[in-house]
Amino acid sequence: MPAQPLASSAPPSDAMQAAFDRLCDAQPMLIGMARAGDVIPGMRHDLVLHAGPPIAWEGMASAMRAAICGGLVFEGLCDTVEEAGRLAASGRIAFAPAHDHDAAGAMAGVITASMPVFVVEERKSGLRAYVGVNEGLGKALRFGANGPEVIERLRWIRDALQPLLQPALEICGPIDLKQMIAEALRRGDEVHNRNKSATSQFFREIAPALVATRAPHDEIERALRFISGNDHFFLSLSIAHAKAVSLYVEQLGAGDIVTVMAGNGVEVGIRVASLGKKWFTAPASVANVKFFEGHGEEEATPTMGDSYITESIGLGAFALAAAPAISSFIGGTVEELIARSERMREITVGEHRHFRIPALGYKGVPSGISVRKVVASGINPLINTGIASRIPGVGQIGAGVQEIPLGCFTAALAALDQQS
Amino acid sequence: MPAQPLASSAPPSDAMQAAFDRLCDAQPMLIGMARAGDVIPGMRHDLVLHAGPPIAWEGMASAMRAAICGGLVFEGLCDTVEEAGRLAASGRIAFAPAHDHDAAGAMAGVITASMPVFVVEERKSGLRAYVGVNEGLGKALRFGANGPEVIERLRWIRDALQPLLQPALEICGPIDLKQMIAEALRRGDEVHNRNKSATSQFFREIAPALVATRAPHDEIERALRFISGNDHFFLSLSIAHAKAVSLYVEQLGAGDIVTVMAGNGVEVGIRVASLGKKWFTAPASVANVKFFEGHGEEEATPTMGDSYITESIGLGAFALAAAPAISSFIGGTVEELIARSERMREITVGEHRHFRIPALGYKGVPSGISVRKVVASGINPLINTGIASRIPGVGQIGAGVQEIPLGCFTAALAALDQQS
Repeated sequence: MPAQPLASSAPPSDAMQAAFDRLCDAQPMLIGMARAGDVIPGMRHDLVLHAGPPIAWEGMASAMRAAICGGLVFEGLCDTVEEAGRLAASGRIAFAPAHDHDAAGAMAGVITASMPVFVVEERKSGLRAYVGVNEGLGKALRFGANGPEVIERLRWIRDALQPLLQPALEICGPIDLKQMIAEALRRGDEVHNRNKSATSQFFREIAPALVATRAPHDEIERALRFISGNDHFFLSLSIAHAKAVSLYVEQLGAGDIVTVMAGNGVEVGIRVASLGKKWFTAPASVANVKFFEGHGEEEATPTMGDSYITESIGLGAFALAAAPAISSFIGGTVEELIARSERMREITVGEHRHFRIPALGYKGVPSGISVRKVVASGINPLINTGIASRIPGVGQIGAGVQEIPLGCFTAALAALDQQS
Repeated sequence: MPAQPLASSAPPSDAMQAAFDRLCDAQPMLIGMARAGDVIPGMRHDLVLHAGPPIAWEGMASAMRAAICGGLVFEGLCDTVEEAGRLAASGRIAFAPAHDHDAAGAMAGVITASMPVFVVEERKSGLRAYVGVNEGLGKALRFGANGPEVIERLRWIRDALQPLLQPALEICGPIDLKQMIAEALRRGDEVHNRNKSATSQFFREIAPALVATRAPHDEIERALRFISGNDHFFLSLSIAHAKAVSLYVEQLGAGDIVTVMAGNGVEVGIRVASLGKKWFTAPASVANVKFFEGHGEEEATPTMGDSYITESIGLGAFALAAAPAISSFIGGTVEELIARSERMREITVGEHRHFRIPALGYKGVPSGISVRKVVASGINPLINTGIASRIPGVGQIGAGVQEIPLGCFTAALAALDQQS
């Protein structure tokens, strides 16, 4: 612990200010799609990326294991999920956090070599972030579902959707995700657990371009219905946007500002700008979530996913006042949710200069989580999250607002103090 | 004046309650498109419908005259707007309020026989409302612009867009506008001056259906870009929805509840459920609007348009708390706008049971304007509005929140008292 932790009201240090400026000024643009193996640094056909901090196969949560098995079947490395389990345990498959490869994935966050990913480039630095296509709610690989229909959809995304979306994105030209997200905050989204308006905006951009590809009508129609039918389609782009911002902040190499918060279902880990790619972890838990009918806490996978990168830049649970209608999805009254979200101002560097909330008189969202402020105040950063069943193949069983454990921050602070 | 005007807190009479129930329970569905002359009751090739209460050609505002001239050129009844002016003054063209024909139009509200209209049916009664296609902002017929590009676009809407949209709507099946509007209120629209999210929702419905028509790619693409490029596209559907609700309330024939508020640029008129199709009017004015750069009050056409039918059912200026981001478009701070909007609760029957505002803890919008409450309180109903230039051909020069003059309500109250 430092002798004098920074008070909330103290002006940020030069390093913190510089990191915060990068967080506000980053210019992430969606520039296209590609297969993961062709663009993600260090990606190989025998490497599986997953959410959260590093973890060995043996220690993984059942939902993550199930998602990995589905990914191996999808890749054609084996025929059944049972075989996939044996292959994964054999030592012939390597595992690594997606965040360690400039990528990120929701929930289990599994990315394999032939999966298509969106490519988002931060324009000032040329840094690129990679995130896969959102499959929709319910039975999806990211929640640990891995049945034939899940694999089939992943193959359709790779073999039919990407070949359509890629030329359509070229027709669109680079898409300004920052502007789209700023507008979505004016339309009731917090772009983590609520992406209805952002998805609609993206759909308005991509639909005419898809038609302009002159692909067969039925293929275009199926692609449109897939995107339009999934209110969370934009989540991938929101994650990729936030990851690109985070890479730009991380590149600075200074400032005690959080760049990553992520869980693997067993541990939660954070990264800090001045501490590079090192993870600081604490045990993951389940708390305060709303379960779907027939499901409960005993069945829940603890905090899992890379999508909390959205909270790391001030969106998601940090921007609940922009999305009051989310209360019906994640539980709680509107007033409670906003009050909890507003407390995030006590642990952040400042108000985001571009992401503003009309209902708060256009105040900027609280952005740039300060490790020292979290430890000094004891206020846990909030995250919006979905909950995956521990039972392989079931999928999502709930959603809610969770907390990142303080242990991550005390560990990071110890490293900061050692460094200085 | 009644001896004892109803206090705001008094329970509504049975008739008022019945009218209010109809207002909340109406089920308006978008069921298709057609040419005005083929579906609007009493429509003829030598009849021009216009916004607001009845007015003769000689007394019309210049913007409305200009729009009518454009409409006559569009119909091929003459070659130039100058000729059209002479034709309009000749007595060979009849004029009538759109509202008198179960139709409605934004601003000048001009509808001619070959114009395509959306058809919205209230499902419990079978009553149908008709509204034309929104042309976009700037130089548009409804603002009195009537140059060649305006006429050209109207012809494209008739000859190219409608033949695409009509089969696409058939593929969609009836579209539940009430549900779409309820969702738009959760996405930052008040569905009068802000229709961004509602337009996006409609776009998500219509885009796959347009592709499913198997029309040539370039025609579909142009249609998609036209709809996607106009954030006010949904306004026509919002007006048609409100008009269908209003027809259903009017059919009851009881209750001192406002069914129509509309202006023709010279007079503002209202209708009341228990008083049928009779208009009660007062002079129109200009006040409290935000002008576009280079324009001012001296150039402004006073209150004009049928779109205030949205306020008549509790949307638009009555629902500003749902759309805080509108302040940048119509002026004023978010707090002021919401406070003004919330005062509408003093002149309305109750909270709408389906149109709710998350930011107000899901409170329903104030709905069902009571003639007696307006007169007793002296509170003018607010309306969101665009402002058309008096100079023919210029188009829109501003936007803002205006008031419906009290004179309309004192006149209606006198008739109510005479009736009882």
